[in-house]
Amino acid sequence: MSFDRLQDKIDVMNNPTVVGLDPAIESIPPHVLEKHIAEKGETLEAAAAAVIEFNMELIDALHNIVPAVKPQLAYYEALGPAGVGALKTTIDYARSKDMYVICDGKRNDIGSTAEAYSTAYLGAVKVGGTELRPFDADALTVNAYLGSDGIKPFIEKAVKYDKAIFVLVKTSNQSAWEFQDVFIDERRLYTVVGDFMEELSLDTIGKHGYSRIGAVVGATYPEEAEYLRARLKHTFFLVPGYGAQGGSAETTAPAFDADGHGAIVNSSRAIIAAWKKTGGDYATAARDEALKMRDELRACLRR
Amino acid sequence: MSFDRLQDKIDVMNNPTVVGLDPAIESIPPHVLEKHIAEKGETLEAAAAAVIEFNMELIDALHNIVPAVKPQLAYYEALGPAGVGALKTTIDYARSKDMYVICDGKRNDIGSTAEAYSTAYLGAVKVGGTELRPFDADALTVNAYLGSDGIKPFIEKAVKYDKAIFVLVKTSNQSAWEFQDVFIDERRLYTVVGDFMEELSLDTIGKHGYSRIGAVVGATYPEEAEYLRARLKHTFFLVPGYGAQGGSAETTAPAFDADGHGAIVNSSRAIIAAWKKTGGDYATAARDEALKMRDELRACLRR
Repeated sequence: MSFDRLQDKIDVMNNPTVVGLDPAIESIPPHVLEKHIAEKGETLEAAAAAVIEFNMELIDALHNIVPAVKPQLAYYEALGPAGVGALKTTIDYARSKDMYVICDGKRNDIGSTAEAYSTAYLGAVKVGGTELRPFDADALTVNAYLGSDGIKPFIEKAVKYDKAIFVLVKTSNQSAWEFQDVFIDERRLYTVVGDFMEELSLDTIGKHGYSRIGAVVGATYPEEAEYLRARLKHTFFLVPGYGAQGGSAETTAPAFDADGHGAIVNSSRAIIAAWKKTGGDYATAARDEALKMRDELRACLRR
Repeated sequence: MSFDRLQDKIDVMNNPTVVGLDPAIESIPPHVLEKHIAEKGETLEAAAAAVIEFNMELIDALHNIVPAVKPQLAYYEALGPAGVGALKTTIDYARSKDMYVICDGKRNDIGSTAEAYSTAYLGAVKVGGTELRPFDADALTVNAYLGSDGIKPFIEKAVKYDKAIFVLVKTSNQSAWEFQDVFIDERRLYTVVGDFMEELSLDTIGKHGYSRIGAVVGATYPEEAEYLRARLKHTFFLVPGYGAQGGSAETTAPAFDADGHGAIVNSSRAIIAAWKKTGGDYATAARDEALKMRDELRACLRR
């Protein structure tokens, strides 16, 4: 099962880290971008080629110490169709290196459209008699504002193709409280959403005790994470907000269960743009920063 | 201002309709798909080429009677990077025919990532010294679950590039009530979100009295639409759910203001796949169905 494979990878490397591949142009070393501009001019195609080189070098440097990557789709779409091509190349390369790939797209829609999104990232489409995988990630982040008929198509596809989703429950940003923290009778909205997803997925539980619907729970809200961890016993947590956003090993610890399982912590800029602080080779800088994060998490989780 | 341009186009054609370009493979006539498979094999590239031909023929048939198109991004992403290329070609072609283009992506994220999405669909990115427009739509649909720091980057980009957004308030699907209708003190969540967006955008109001933040309000909930129309006086409504989902001219009428302004009604499958019911040329079938919808809306709005 999808999250079993993720948890097994985490256990083998003793590292519950996912590296966010968020290739904003300012995170790519200038010499990489300039090389491709020299070849292709000041075009989106040049920027996309730079993203591919940057990501492949990062994956080469990280794949034997980090179990998973999380491409943030916005940064690829910001380079147009060529950027989305770079996303596909990145997913394929990461999976060829045995990394678990979470597409962070926060997709959401109703019925047949939700099905089209789940086909895009988790499933397959038939052209004539041939079944083709448009992006073929391991998991996708999903926004649940539209309710269960916007979630069920993702679950069906996850079951069919052995994939998973992470539903936004409590996000890491400062204004998350505005809607997510409103009270509905005794429960806050994020708890209502979390409870709903826990219920919806109880028939998809794998050997580690987690279902195919995970939850996004920000590292910046440790009390909420502790509360949700105790409450949503079969929900695997994706924990953003480490590093650049102010989360730390201490604030992410409550997202893990008593066995140190059931969560993976994301860091993006702090790792992929570590070269900005250290200078020198960007892949080495990313690896050093990823090792530091791993060791901080290990110390805090006593893994 | 972006919604002024949309309202002016609606007034000139006396038709508050947007046609959803949702090219699911089963909506494309088989002979169109087969032609491209003969050229490119059973590939995503062949399907994407079929989408481009299909959309261009539809736009040719519709652009002088319908003011706007709404490509649903899921159907393009379901064909991988080639499909996203077909999206860009479709946007460019529709705008070259003077149509207003709403990208229905329901995008959402925080801070710098929301900025990357707004760059992708509404703004421009700098590669070296050259400013490039990745998709360059007129408007984008946005999901607000993450709160205002996920919305503000879209507003900034909308102001800078004269664009607009539609925030999901009350969607047209059956399970919309599960989260959107929960009560928070005296107000339902969709009202809380709608009020919030109305407040956030009061400094961006154009000549027709509408701001740059519109709202998605489903045609399947006429009472809620009437309530929201009275309450959100500066919010332009995008009304999905007409036709295939059960909405009609009668159920969409409450979304319009007293002048018959302030809303646009979407129909997708009922128009673009009208050939399935009528047989014959698909572009003619789509145009006939679009004229029928226009006349139904005119009769109901006494335009």
